Amino acid sequence: MEKKYIYDFSEGKKDMKELLGGKGANLAEMTNIGIPVPFGFTITTEACHEYSETNKFPEGIFEEMENKIKLVEEKMGMKFGDPTNPLLLSVRSGAAVSMPGMMDTVLNLGLNNAIVEGMIQKTGNERFVLDSYRRFIQMFGDVVMDVAHHDFEKILHAKKEAKGTQFDTDLTSDDLRELITEFKAMVHDKLGKDFPEDPLEQLKLSIEAVFASWNNSRAVLYRKLNDITGLQGTAVNVQAMVYGNMGDTSGTGVCFTRDPATGENIFYGEYLMNAQGEDVVAGIRTPKELDTLGEQNAEVYKELCDIRVKLEQHYKEMQDMEFTIQEGILYILQTRNGKRTTASGVKMAVDMVSEGLITKKEALLRIEPNSLNQLLHKRLDPESKAKFEAVAKGLPASPGAAVGQAVFDAHKAHDWAEYGKTVVLVRTETSPEDLIGMNASQGILTSRGGMTSHAAVVARGMGKCCIAGCADVIVHEAEGYCEVKGQRVNEGDIITLDGTSGELFIGKIESIDPELSGDFETIMNWADEFRRMKIRTNADTPHDSEVAIKFGAEGIGLCRTEHMFFEGERIKAMREMILSADLEGRKKALAKLLPFQKADFKGIFEVMGERPVTIRLLDPPLHEFLPKEEADIKEIAGEVGLSVEKLHEKIDSLHEVNPMLGHRGCRLGITYPEITEMQTRAIIEAAIEVKKEKGTNFVPEIMIPLVGNVNEFKNQKDLAKKTADGIIAESGVELKYMIGTMIEVPRGALTADAIAEHAEFFSFGTNDLTQMTLGFSRDDVGSFVPEYIEQGIFEKDPFQVLDQTGVGQLVKMAVEKGRAGRENIKLGICGEHGGDPSSVEFCHKVGLDYVSCSPFRVPIARLAAAHAVIKESQ
Amino acid sequence: MEKKYIYDFSEGKKDMKELLGGKGANLAEMTNIGIPVPFGFTITTEACHEYSETNKFPEGIFEEMENKIKLVEEKMGMKFGDPTNPLLLSVRSGAAVSMPGMMDTVLNLGLNNAIVEGMIQKTGNERFVLDSYRRFIQMFGDVVMDVAHHDFEKILHAKKEAKGTQFDTDLTSDDLRELITEFKAMVHDKLGKDFPEDPLEQLKLSIEAVFASWNNSRAVLYRKLNDITGLQGTAVNVQAMVYGNMGDTSGTGVCFTRDPATGENIFYGEYLMNAQGEDVVAGIRTPKELDTLGEQNAEVYKELCDIRVKLEQHYKEMQDMEFTIQEGILYILQTRNGKRTTASGVKMAVDMVSEGLITKKEALLRIEPNSLNQLLHKRLDPESKAKFEAVAKGLPASPGAAVGQAVFDAHKAHDWAEYGKTVVLVRTETSPEDLIGMNASQGILTSRGGMTSHAAVVARGMGKCCIAGCADVIVHEAEGYCEVKGQRVNEGDIITLDGTSGELFIGKIESIDPELSGDFETIMNWADEFRRMKIRTNADTPHDSEVAIKFGAEGIGLCRTEHMFFEGERIKAMREMILSADLEGRKKALAKLLPFQKADFKGIFEVMGERPVTIRLLDPPLHEFLPKEEADIKEIAGEVGLSVEKLHEKIDSLHEVNPMLGHRGCRLGITYPEITEMQTRAIIEAAIEVKKEKGTNFVPEIMIPLVGNVNEFKNQKDLAKKTADGIIAESGVELKYMIGTMIEVPRGALTADAIAEHAEFFSFGTNDLTQMTLGFSRDDVGSFVPEYIEQGIFEKDPFQVLDQTGVGQLVKMAVEKGRAGRENIKLGICGEHGGDPSSVEFCHKVGLDYVSCSPFRVPIARLAAAHAVIKESQ
Repeated sequence: MEKKYIYDFSEGKKDMKELLGGKGANLAEMTNIGIPVPFGFTITTEACHEYSETNKFPEGIFEEMENKIKLVEEKMGMKFGDPTNPLLLSVRSGAAVSMPGMMDTVLNLGLNNAIVEGMIQKTGNERFVLDSYRRFIQMFGDVVMDVAHHDFEKILHAKKEAKGTQFDTDLTSDDLRELITEFKAMVHDKLGKDFPEDPLEQLKLSIEAVFASWNNSRAVLYRKLNDITGLQGTAVNVQAMVYGNMGDTSGTGVCFTRDPATGENIFYGEYLMNAQGEDVVAGIRTPKELDTLGEQNAEVYKELCDIRVKLEQHYKEMQDMEFTIQEGILYILQTRNGKRTTASGVKMAVDMVSEGLITKKEALLRIEPNSLNQLLHKRLDPESKAKFEAVAKGLPASPGAAVGQAVFDAHKAHDWAEYGKTVVLVRTETSPEDLIGMNASQGILTSRGGMTSHAAVVARGMGKCCIAGCADVIVHEAEGYCEVKGQRVNEGDIITLDGTSGELFIGKIESIDPELSGDFETIMNWADEFRRMKIRTNADTPHDSEVAIKFGAEGIGLCRTEHMFFEGERIKAMREMILSADLEGRKKALAKLLPFQKADFKGIFEVMGERPVTIRLLDPPLHEFLPKEEADIKEIAGEVGLSVEKLHEKIDSLHEVNPMLGHRGCRLGITYPEITEMQTRAIIEAAIEVKKEKGTNFVPEIMIPLVGNVNEFKNQKDLAKKTADGIIAESGVELKYMIGTMIEVPRGALTADAIAEHAEFFSFGTNDLTQMTLGFSRDDVGSFVPEYIEQGIFEKDPFQVLDQTGVGQLVKMAVEKGRAGRENIKLGICGEHGGDPSSVEFCHKVGLDYVSCSPFRVPIARLAAAHAVIKESQ
Repeated sequence: MEKKYIYDFSEGKKDMKELLGGKGANLAEMTNIGIPVPFGFTITTEACHEYSETNKFPEGIFEEMENKIKLVEEKMGMKFGDPTNPLLLSVRSGAAVSMPGMMDTVLNLGLNNAIVEGMIQKTGNERFVLDSYRRFIQMFGDVVMDVAHHDFEKILHAKKEAKGTQFDTDLTSDDLRELITEFKAMVHDKLGKDFPEDPLEQLKLSIEAVFASWNNSRAVLYRKLNDITGLQGTAVNVQAMVYGNMGDTSGTGVCFTRDPATGENIFYGEYLMNAQGEDVVAGIRTPKELDTLGEQNAEVYKELCDIRVKLEQHYKEMQDMEFTIQEGILYILQTRNGKRTTASGVKMAVDMVSEGLITKKEALLRIEPNSLNQLLHKRLDPESKAKFEAVAKGLPASPGAAVGQAVFDAHKAHDWAEYGKTVVLVRTETSPEDLIGMNASQGILTSRGGMTSHAAVVARGMGKCCIAGCADVIVHEAEGYCEVKGQRVNEGDIITLDGTSGELFIGKIESIDPELSGDFETIMNWADEFRRMKIRTNADTPHDSEVAIKFGAEGIGLCRTEHMFFEGERIKAMREMILSADLEGRKKALAKLLPFQKADFKGIFEVMGERPVTIRLLDPPLHEFLPKEEADIKEIAGEVGLSVEKLHEKIDSLHEVNPMLGHRGCRLGITYPEITEMQTRAIIEAAIEVKKEKGTNFVPEIMIPLVGNVNEFKNQKDLAKKTADGIIAESGVELKYMIGTMIEVPRGALTADAIAEHAEFFSFGTNDLTQMTLGFSRDDVGSFVPEYIEQGIFEKDPFQVLDQTGVGQLVKMAVEKGRAGRENIKLGICGEHGGDPSSVEFCHKVGLDYVSCSPFRVPIARLAAAHAVIKESQ
């Protein structure tokens, strides 16, 4: 049998998108379920592919096409190329994946001088026919013949000027006749050949042009940017033209089967009588609301309402439709799943389940987990925002909105906030010393650093809006102001950050609080019904823990103890510890820290109730706690009783070339066992007191960081166990606890079997594991990772989306080895990837017991974990 | 059958070391081949083990022992505990592994008052018998009864003082009788019980004491430090006593079957007549050379000479023997493999092969590869060194010796050397900017940094002596002097470094040049006969290449191109490139570098002939090439036409938090393709010219560094290939070349299959692979790795000895995946581990094709590669 290159609309169906493109498949689907679609046919993507390869049309395709044209003529009762009753055609591209505006379209095809006169005879509407012909010449000339759009516009413009009119619609039939002549003359001038008069030739040339548009530079770039691969080409839809501008009984409109903004189950749309599709969009005439269409034509409106129900029942999805009424007869030109906001999508999904239209599983899959972000953060009021212009744009490092007074010093930010001011912290970059100020601010703006810089990571953890790496902002911290492209922002000036877009504004824009509606909760509850994995959160304070519980966290997967050392008296004692010359001195300083740590842990245990809490022992290198600025060094030298010179020496001696790979994690606990002892004591004493006071039954989990060698783990476990068991025995309270480790050093993954023999749980620290497996310092990748992603070396930023090919292998290996070493070992992840949907799916597949992410990503992780189960079952 | 706890000397043999200990097994072996050994028996290590576990003697052991004593009595014709003809015994420990001095010994056992009198009767030598008893009481009292050695010495000392004598030997029989009485009284005083008179009780208590000594703290520590594990305990050797101090026909001596210092096949040793073993060692009397023994007793000397031959033939190894002549009868008390210098060991091994005593394989296995280091570097003349005292000690970072004038600035070192001075460079630490001075110096001394610091690595590569991290040296670079524990060393003062011990001396010590004797070459040639792996070298200059070829290198496995950028005009052009604002500027600067690079490569290709040369493209981050000191910054700002402020900004913008994981390796080549282009051009043009001029047929290998993702490799390969093919086509010369990659990022190993589809070779960069797999920054591990090794967390420094458990897994995986991706892929290693014997063995086992190491380690690698094959075949 010969290859079939053309399907008429009665031959296709909606799941033939690969071959017929999305538009073609849907036109066929509608045709077959009895929706009034102007008849036509689709030339397959295969034909396009062959054309691209050989640069000519496949053999036999024109015979096939002539047969199909006959069918269209029969169905429409008109004849292509016949002046007495001419069939006009549209030619539209349509690939399997929507590529809006990227490829070409020709309308009104099939007109020439003779047919124009015949049509005028037939319709009695001279102006309409001439205007159609004028538009056709313009479109065909541009798309098919490659004459610049601009060249036609110039002539049109001159004509209007000459006639003293403003709108195209003001041109008379005579004017249009002149225009047509002038257009054709210009084409002949430019190309040295005539505008084609033969309808069939027009059709073939148009199809060829659409095929060729598949590989035009716009389309190639679009596919590259949107990572669209594996397609054969575009299909071409050839369809009978219908007209909404044939008089007052004609019209055209766009409608949605539900309200795309709110999700409400109402018929929503706009239309214009005696108009063409583009007029609705162009905004020259104001369209009318759909529910007034009944007043124009009750029958057509009823028919449209019936079609609305039929299409939604059929597609089980909110539809975005285009329709045209030609002299009282309704045609549907297109249907597709409608775009919507996250909030409306959630409402529709819940409604459709209660309407029995879709299942819970289907409802869950309709919601892209990351889109929940929109529901979880304060955002700028679009109306208010529209009145402002952004002065600079940085990386959208943490979503949400922040409005407040600019402050350039963390301590000042803290102080101002204490006085009740709302502040935005602006820094070149941030360090742990700035935590106090970040915590006190509405949002953070930095001029340096990437999506995973300190500012970005901490801000996301805090659920605070952050713009990072906004290079146009030059911050003068010492002087207390910044410059944005020559504009000066002083301390106290109001600025607004849009963390979702990365835009910076000077002045105050109104913002909108997140609304966690009932439907959102319903979706979350359904997600919980399906998911296997538990969702924990990364939280270091009682407040974060409370927020996370509200968002559905079932435990803490990572409580970082170092953040607790940065405030007030604590940092003093911490520095005293670091600067002590001997064990005695360190123990004395640690004794001062103990009550703080203990109080922190008590607070967290009280909030978390019986939920599990994993506490990681001190991780960062000690130099992070020491001052960097000369003024601070002077002050601190006085406090700890060292000369400034000595303090400099000490700071220098702690300097590291690659702190990421230096003296940190369990390496600290091994060289300074007294730190591990103090932290264990704080955890266990806090747990005992909470248990005594509240009677809650919980099992704290002590996590040893940065283990790469089982001997490291054994060393720290023995020490922690000895300390804990002693305290428990003394207290007389029965308390269980667990000791486990982070798997974040490649060697830890490689030797996970040995480690699992001693560790009761693993938590994958995929941030560090990514850094070491890839050899990428998070702080330094800004110089090449953007280029890597642009060049396609990595598809995604591996710090945002887990690198399954590389890092994933180590995670898998460690899971297998971990279970081999200890059958019932508890396995989780606490890197930033714990809140990324595709990474969560990976975690499910490799069999982790839980993922842990920042409080504001808990709902995303809940949904992603449910998706993973549902997709697996399909 | 009951368990056998005791073996008499006729029952054991030399391969029963596990059960009988080394000493016992050899005593038995000698007995069985007819060597005159005082008869005795060995109590097994199993008995010791049971004693340790249960704290009592195994059942039935005493019956067994009484039978064995009877046998000894028969053989020796004496009777244990019989005053008329008493058998005296020695009790000595002896484990399977030698633990010199760690456990206890009792001699002269079996004496008491009655027996002493009987013996005096029998021997007629009152003083000898009394002295023996005195010694026995002292030894037994100390070892078995736990009376402090000091308490006996005090009495002895008082006695000598009272008698006005200086030596023990001056004490008369009467003095000794008094001493014995006083000793016994003191013991009774201290312990409240009598010194035991019953010989059998003495024996049992002594055996118990030796068993107990297995777990004394000295022995436990020794085993820990020397990593001796898996032993059951010590054996106990009970042997008839013989005496060399029974008059002028008695004597004792130590001898070696060959000269241990030179390796010559001569009988070498010393003896003393009428003396005990300890007298030979103690140095109070000067021993005589062995060849004069014939004058004393020709018959005994001949017998000893025969035994020498017999033992060497039997053991096929140079023996270290102890002998005693008792009243004209020769006894051999011990034999063992003798210690030797590397040079003598090499000579003996070669001689023994030509004597037909051992095979080549055995000869090779006798030489520990690392010991060849002794033969490969200049060393201090021990005689001259003995006159000096070290003023400080640092890490022995690169072996050898250096004598010269101290200089504290690299450029000055270079200049002084140009004027013909010999200099030693002294710095706090070194950076690539110091290369020029390091190269010009005899040796390098740094006060900071570890075994793998820049100074250490570069010095080893250059084969130059280096002491690193010598913390007692405080260097004042700017002022041009250093202080060593208060002593001042000015610029120009002569200092001496011993890189093998890490000792620093002030003043000039004479040194000895390395002698590569004919035997050494013979051993190397034999090694070449056996090894499968090729040995390449890491060399960046024609000079290094020449040295390496002399040492047997078969190619260059790593030619680092960045070292070529640090001198004179080059560094200027390099900085110009880095500081250029745009591509244009970078290309201009690179064009200046091209001729330098090309000339470098030509020089290397010319030296290497048809041997393969792997050239690595630029690897370090660009900021390494920028100035750090304020003065340099000022100067360079002028040179490149930037303001000092702008230059500071540029330097700041290139600063990286973790340069190890930053913008380096192929990441540079991807973001600045013009660098890869220039380097490829330099390589290919150089190769074409050498081929044209010399007609040599060689295949240059271009190596892309730091690949973790196949797309990185493809990007750089495509670029290099395009550049190379263009040049080759233009030249008209046929030139083959290969493009491969370093595997040094964990992700590179994990995805080696994909990379191998495009890469023609892999070279394992185990330095960086270790850094990333373990998360250890080489520059920063000084703060915890020493403690890790002390605590046994890592057995060895993983930068010196490949971590087979962790990093080794990745290497293995990458080898398997690499071969899966490309069957005939060439695999090698170019990390520092390429010169470490155990790591070389690992490389052989996993199937690498070659190892590459610094020139001075090439012979070590050759031998280690042969060892690997020989061990595998066994």
